[in-house]
Amino acid sequence: MSVQAYDENNIFAKILKGEIPCHKVYEDEHTLAFMDVMPQAPGHLLVIPKTGSRNLLDADPAVLAHVIPVVQKLAVAAKDAFEADGVFIAQFNEPAAGQTVFHLHFHVIPRREGEPLKPHTGKMEDHAVLAEHARKVRDAL
Amino acid sequence: MSVQAYDENNIFAKILKGEIPCHKVYEDEHTLAFMDVMPQAPGHLLVIPKTGSRNLLDADPAVLAHVIPVVQKLAVAAKDAFEADGVFIAQFNEPAAGQTVFHLHFHVIPRREGEPLKPHTGKMEDHAVLAEHARKVRDAL
Repeated sequence: MSVQAYDENNIFAKILKGEIPCHKVYEDEHTLAFMDVMPQAPGHLLVIPKTGSRNLLDADPAVLAHVIPVVQKLAVAAKDAFEADGVFIAQFNEPAAGQTVFHLHFHVIPRREGEPLKPHTGKMEDHAVLAEHARKVRDAL
Repeated sequence: MSVQAYDENNIFAKILKGEIPCHKVYEDEHTLAFMDVMPQAPGHLLVIPKTGSRNLLDADPAVLAHVIPVVQKLAVAAKDAFEADGVFIAQFNEPAAGQTVFHLHFHVIPRREGEPLKPHTGKMEDHAVLAEHARKVRDAL
């Protein structure tokens, strides 16, 4: 396996350093969760470890073991907050798999019957909407 | 949150009990991995915990912490075995999110540049092909 080095200046690293803002829903010693700014469904959020790795392939297994229960916690909360029928967890490794930001992240996407996922259009959701959605998830935690 | 009870007779429970066969690629105390019989790409495999839960939402967090490093191990091996450019990890909770077997499972799907995922057609892959693909992943572990 060859894996490219972790880039300390990726956008999620900058969020972790507080250099750019996010719509935060959860934080603990090891983990941060915030709304995806280009949601594929209402409540679409991201869970990331604070320890940098490019993706799952080069992550410390101990870091993964910390992150996945938080993914679960946020999946349950997002499902409740958005009265969803299900939750899709997606995790992309390398561009061929759809990865665009090179800091390990898990997508948590509430799903409702009969509502297809929106494509990634590159269009950013309104920040007032994201702030309200973040509040709903926090309230459900 | 309301979650339906775990059904002890789901197909993955039967695989765990040895009542039906699988193309096994990995097993340890807590975890089993085997080829998906309807692969969306060559090397598509599934990682499941031996402890029953309907999906991620009702899983014991300690079980998740055991499973996710195995998902990583298999993702690295499948990427190597199939000389893939990336790996897509997918985990579906409830039918609205695409879940069809109600025992927690993580999909590990090698991705290659320019090769779109095959849709879930319901068509089973040839068992000789699955056996050969399982061998390739085992050899890469």
